[in-house]
Amino acid sequence: MQFHHHGYVSTDPRVQPAAGVGIDRPAELPDTVDVLIVGTGPAGMIAAAQLSQFPGITTRIVERRGGRLAIGQADGIQARSVETFQAFGFAERIIAEAYRITEMAFWKPDPDDSSRIIRTARANDDPTGISEFPHLIVNQARVLDYFAEVMENSPTRMTPDYGFEFRSLTVADEGEYPVTVTLVHTTGELMGQERTVHARYVVGADGARSGVRQAIGCTMAGDQAFHAWGVMDVLAVTDFPDIRTKCAIQSGSGGNILLIPREGGYLFRMYVDLGEVSGDDNGAVRKTTIDEIIATANGILSPYTLDVKNVAWHSVYEVAHRLTDRFDDVLPDDVGTRTPRVFIAGDACHTHSAKAGQGMNVSMQDGFNLGWKLGYVLDGRSPESLLSTYSAERQVIAKNLIDFDKQWSTLMATKPEDLADPSELEDFYTRTAEFPAGFMTQYPPSMLIGDATHQDLATGFPVGKRFKSAPVIRVADGNSVQLGHHHRADGRWRLYAFADAGAPGERSALAEWAEWLQSSPDSPLVAHTPEGSDIDSIFDVKVVYQQAHSAIDIGQVPEAFLPATGPYSLTDYEKVYAANPEDDFFEQRGIDRAGAVVIVRPDQYVAGVLPLAATADLALFFRQILLPARVPVTP
Amino acid sequence: MQFHHHGYVSTDPRVQPAAGVGIDRPAELPDTVDVLIVGTGPAGMIAAAQLSQFPGITTRIVERRGGRLAIGQADGIQARSVETFQAFGFAERIIAEAYRITEMAFWKPDPDDSSRIIRTARANDDPTGISEFPHLIVNQARVLDYFAEVMENSPTRMTPDYGFEFRSLTVADEGEYPVTVTLVHTTGELMGQERTVHARYVVGADGARSGVRQAIGCTMAGDQAFHAWGVMDVLAVTDFPDIRTKCAIQSGSGGNILLIPREGGYLFRMYVDLGEVSGDDNGAVRKTTIDEIIATANGILSPYTLDVKNVAWHSVYEVAHRLTDRFDDVLPDDVGTRTPRVFIAGDACHTHSAKAGQGMNVSMQDGFNLGWKLGYVLDGRSPESLLSTYSAERQVIAKNLIDFDKQWSTLMATKPEDLADPSELEDFYTRTAEFPAGFMTQYPPSMLIGDATHQDLATGFPVGKRFKSAPVIRVADGNSVQLGHHHRADGRWRLYAFADAGAPGERSALAEWAEWLQSSPDSPLVAHTPEGSDIDSIFDVKVVYQQAHSAIDIGQVPEAFLPATGPYSLTDYEKVYAANPEDDFFEQRGIDRAGAVVIVRPDQYVAGVLPLAATADLALFFRQILLPARVPVTP
Repeated sequence: MQFHHHGYVSTDPRVQPAAGVGIDRPAELPDTVDVLIVGTGPAGMIAAAQLSQFPGITTRIVERRGGRLAIGQADGIQARSVETFQAFGFAERIIAEAYRITEMAFWKPDPDDSSRIIRTARANDDPTGISEFPHLIVNQARVLDYFAEVMENSPTRMTPDYGFEFRSLTVADEGEYPVTVTLVHTTGELMGQERTVHARYVVGADGARSGVRQAIGCTMAGDQAFHAWGVMDVLAVTDFPDIRTKCAIQSGSGGNILLIPREGGYLFRMYVDLGEVSGDDNGAVRKTTIDEIIATANGILSPYTLDVKNVAWHSVYEVAHRLTDRFDDVLPDDVGTRTPRVFIAGDACHTHSAKAGQGMNVSMQDGFNLGWKLGYVLDGRSPESLLSTYSAERQVIAKNLIDFDKQWSTLMATKPEDLADPSELEDFYTRTAEFPAGFMTQYPPSMLIGDATHQDLATGFPVGKRFKSAPVIRVADGNSVQLGHHHRADGRWRLYAFADAGAPGERSALAEWAEWLQSSPDSPLVAHTPEGSDIDSIFDVKVVYQQAHSAIDIGQVPEAFLPATGPYSLTDYEKVYAANPEDDFFEQRGIDRAGAVVIVRPDQYVAGVLPLAATADLALFFRQILLPARVPVTP
Repeated sequence: MQFHHHGYVSTDPRVQPAAGVGIDRPAELPDTVDVLIVGTGPAGMIAAAQLSQFPGITTRIVERRGGRLAIGQADGIQARSVETFQAFGFAERIIAEAYRITEMAFWKPDPDDSSRIIRTARANDDPTGISEFPHLIVNQARVLDYFAEVMENSPTRMTPDYGFEFRSLTVADEGEYPVTVTLVHTTGELMGQERTVHARYVVGADGARSGVRQAIGCTMAGDQAFHAWGVMDVLAVTDFPDIRTKCAIQSGSGGNILLIPREGGYLFRMYVDLGEVSGDDNGAVRKTTIDEIIATANGILSPYTLDVKNVAWHSVYEVAHRLTDRFDDVLPDDVGTRTPRVFIAGDACHTHSAKAGQGMNVSMQDGFNLGWKLGYVLDGRSPESLLSTYSAERQVIAKNLIDFDKQWSTLMATKPEDLADPSELEDFYTRTAEFPAGFMTQYPPSMLIGDATHQDLATGFPVGKRFKSAPVIRVADGNSVQLGHHHRADGRWRLYAFADAGAPGERSALAEWAEWLQSSPDSPLVAHTPEGSDIDSIFDVKVVYQQAHSAIDIGQVPEAFLPATGPYSLTDYEKVYAANPEDDFFEQRGIDRAGAVVIVRPDQYVAGVLPLAATADLALFFRQILLPARVPVTP
């Protein structure tokens, strides 16, 4: 965490100084906004938290409820989400209060007595060390609380606007605020009255029954049939021995339960399968009572019993596997001729079962993907065409999610005797672990993702996948740190320069690259950093040397890696790293000893791998994405 | 973190429900209190934070300043303090914002040109892995903020009472509130007016010039001469390469600097030695200006330069090595005939240089030692004689501190040519690392510390030293956790039962011990747990089995380790552990395979090691410390 460089910070350094629109932020929802986000679920809140880091942009997020979510809804947090929380600065706190999944148990009917269940397998949750972050369970309400805190501590001092329901919107062909949104007050004296807001952009993160989706004419395609679940968060006394372990439980009668232990050591959630529901059920299944759910659970758990002492929350819901045709308001025929003004994210785009614990996670990555892009366009850093990449990148991810969830939920509901192999379920769980952990996403080449021509220079950083951290030694203080954990969700691009063999002060490809980056008019730093801003305001440039940190003379390190920042032009010493001889980053991530440059997007995805000498390619890559921000210095 | 067992907690689980005196806590300082703490420094705040966990006790902490400390004072946080912060629940957050010391550099005059300094050595800060916690630097103000948060989130909802200066006190021989304290308002409309508070006990944590110390007639003995330091927290540009590393710097002119990099990546502190000051200096040295300090620093750093851009804080101070004769108001002749009513802690007891970074740390251990003892006596759990152990235990620790600091500060100020060995300084630093890390404290046998008769059963837990954690596997969820990190600063005693070879369900010494603990009228659980309280309210009993966690049938584990807690009598599953076959706790801590019981005090010190069969010794130990709380059940 870096602070004090604008002067001494006496209180919590997580609270940034108010700036821009945050200095005099109106408490009431204004009539015109840059971005209006509808819905304070995970997709909406992460987009808001990301946009809150842009002091020049007015973002408001409206919510139908009168206040924060108190209970219920999602609870599964994959490692990729924890990695994302780390970038937003609250991973260590949410880890401390969450339940951590380290293994999963599988219970099936006893072959000798199918009225009894027995444990048939235990699978390690992350057998291959996919991530340095844990797989967690914690109520969605707490995730939203932490994002709300990030927003409130940001320069823009954002807080959600509760008590507004979305009604309709229209998009004009022109005008500064082309989207006109009609909201309705849901609380207080104005309850029932309409309210109009004009926005440059609108994000519909308003759930499975999204009004924004409907307003822009997207269609949800997929299963006709619904599947029904009884879900309950309960405090209970039981003799079931794995009550604190994630379990898939199949009984001889065909019933099945997904058991999710919850934060705090006592609470757990059970998803009790209530079977397929036809389209003409008209919600009859929703009349299933909590007593019926508990009785069904007891039947499945036999010979064990569940004595429920307190029901914190329960719900019966039906869900179909469905996917929207597009994530924005640009009709297929108009792609390339206009750029989007309205977006949808999260459950508004994709609905599926809760069995793989994916919904909140994929939704957050929707919002993370969109947030910085809106920020860049509104801040004048990027052309509007950047916004078209959102639907292009996320729609296919949602499709993969639904395909995966179908496979997994079908497998979980299949009777043991109908499985091709008795261990099919646990084998699938272990074999596919990278997907539910959130790390299978790989964006294809686009204006934002380079091709894989130079992938061999950094085999551990597949282009299009998220940057996977590993430890390095910070030269200035000898601390072992995770290189990737310095990537905060501050909207900046990262350039990681991996040095060739020369030490600082020696002639090297790295030294030439650093010189070019610092001073060439073609350099993205020179071309795209606004006049008067700190040199690291758009690009955060770091170097990793091959030598041990004690062999690095920091006085010889190029200026590009020791930038002067803030009003006092203080040296930032946290951009210079060395491989740890005992755990060599170059080996860990397959970095060529001749060096490489790895480009990482603001949402942590690897956008490109280049040789140190390929400065023209680097310049070209950013000229597609970023507008010129400074009159190039005449050479 | 355990919660939800009293019903669902929707918001931050770190905020405990208000209870007892916290339900209707008066905002204004009341006329009578159980404990009055004078001074909101580290010693006072930790004692307050500990007492805030006792809902039945009214503790108030007064401070001369009108508000929180903003800047300056101490900044060194040894690993033992971070361990303590972990018990109070904020270690992960303070680690995230602090500077971490991993090595120390030593700079001395270049033998070829004594006008220049050169780096002569780098020493690893914790070469032997003394602790799983880091050595940190962070401003004292933040430490106090976190303790204030603990207090405010506690059942008693404590907050400091700012704007009261201590004037005097008297101790009566009798009465419910025998200590009468006179305070003076320092702010607001009542400024200058006196205020009287009657207290059962008073803690003077009011610094080196303690008024409470004076009021109880303690004398400070030690050096006559003072040593003067110029200290500054600054933002600067420099070519000194180790500016982000802790350094001891000696120049050829005899000047020396202790350089402490600070939190946030930019700020650093320098202690610039201003030499010995005679007693009749009358504070002349305090007229040294910041410009003079900076000039002296530049002289010492030559050939490097320091361009100070911003001075966050600076001070010139003189300090002598001095120690109080006692830590409470019981005169030597009265020991054994009366118990103390007034205590002093922290700088009020011991003054010394800042060079070893010990002051705040030892002060916090003073307060941690005292806090739970006051809680136990006021709560009626322990006899008043418990309070006499505070002075007995802490006075000798303060003496050791002063002896160590004298050695270290003398060494640091010694000219290189006067050292017996050129590497004497760095050798001393490495050799004595356990002391400054805070782990040399070993309390001698007393009513609170058993003898070492059975030390061979658990060689890794020396009786009298703090319980050193190591990883185990929690059986219920397969999580790898640090056994010791479950010890929260909640005032409870810990009993760790290390099993003999038998698995749960088999006859074993452990099973017999558990049966005795659960049901014998002699058992401390039975004898000392108040009627109507949860069975784990005084004793937190945990078991560690030798088998792998997957081999433990939790249904066979004795009830003593699976207690029913809270209003719903839910099972607490977080007391049953297994050794990790890949990192065996029994081997790590030298536990006998025949099992052992390790008794740990509320302040984390090992009070005894016993065989599982020595139930009579265990019962006897607690009968000395705890009063009977429940009429024994007739067998």
